[in-house]
Amino acid sequence: MAARAGLTREEEIRAAAFRVFREKGYHGTSMQDIADEVGLLKGSLYHYIRSKEELLGRLFEGALESTLEELGQIAAGDGTATARLRQMVTTYALAVVSNLDAVGVYLREYRELPAKELAVVRERRRSMRRLFERVIEQGMRSGEFIRGDAKLATLAILGMCNWMYEWYRPRGRKGAEAVAEELATRAVSSLG
Amino acid sequence: MAARAGLTREEEIRAAAFRVFREKGYHGTSMQDIADEVGLLKGSLYHYIRSKEELLGRLFEGALESTLEELGQIAAGDGTATARLRQMVTTYALAVVSNLDAVGVYLREYRELPAKELAVVRERRRSMRRLFERVIEQGMRSGEFIRGDAKLATLAILGMCNWMYEWYRPRGRKGAEAVAEELATRAVSSLG
Repeated sequence: MAARAGLTREEEIRAAAFRVFREKGYHGTSMQDIADEVGLLKGSLYHYIRSKEELLGRLFEGALESTLEELGQIAAGDGTATARLRQMVTTYALAVVSNLDAVGVYLREYRELPAKELAVVRERRRSMRRLFERVIEQGMRSGEFIRGDAKLATLAILGMCNWMYEWYRPRGRKGAEAVAEELATRAVSSLG
Repeated sequence: MAARAGLTREEEIRAAAFRVFREKGYHGTSMQDIADEVGLLKGSLYHYIRSKEELLGRLFEGALESTLEELGQIAAGDGTATARLRQMVTTYALAVVSNLDAVGVYLREYRELPAKELAVVRERRRSMRRLFERVIEQGMRSGEFIRGDAKLATLAILGMCNWMYEWYRPRGRKGAEAVAEELATRAVSSLG
């Protein structure tokens, strides 16, 4: 994420913090590092956030929210379980590659969140898993998918997608859309 | 990993370090923490290792080695690509669940390794990926698997397995063998 026109100062700080946390880790990052990255004096940064901990909390606030909503709409839509699952995996994989810095920090640092925010994040992740699980169960009942452990199948598919944060390179040989669609095909096949 | 009879003091230190690194992160861990965990005075710990950095290096030295060797033998063996891939995924998934502490620390902290050790680890991971990729390519050529991007298929399958370190609980409802075999079935199906 490069600094873009149209971002509010808060959004710039958030994007800068994601980059620095991802590079140096939460513990290795100081408020000074974040101030440097966003081009603010440290004193000015404190005008926007009180502490590194508060910043980490804000970073995750709402991070999953929009993806969760989109997945919920697809899951509740018409169409076969196969079609809905394919669309859900595509959407989720695209969300991962569109937010590589955020996902990387999230996966490495969510244990550092204050208990209350951690509970919120965990609940959102759980809701997301349940959306996938429910569609997979529907497909197992309808005979589209072979019957089996829907929970494990869900974790396998989310693993496929989440792991992208370790290997996906925005300038790599394949575009995000193509990769997301191919993972969706693999995910659907994995249930056959 | 609980302390077990038969471990050398070096192995005990390694196991203790994995536990503490996993819990507190590499940066959050002091030599004192490791000494406490293994039940040594800090001065005695320095008898075995000179620094935290050296310890991290040793932790990864050989960590992938035995799994890599086992996978190489399966890949080079007789049998269909399907049968070999199934066995490789089972082996790999079991290696992940048998070393949850190590895998967790590895995935979070490998960037902290000194350049030379990091290069070794990267090369081993690459060799492992290539073993999977080659068997998948063979299966695509023989018509066992649908033709496609063997590299992406490999990353999807490794993601399925690696992600276990985030969700697998040794005392969960399913044993390691059952989970590993089910993931292997999903992995093979994902290529159909």
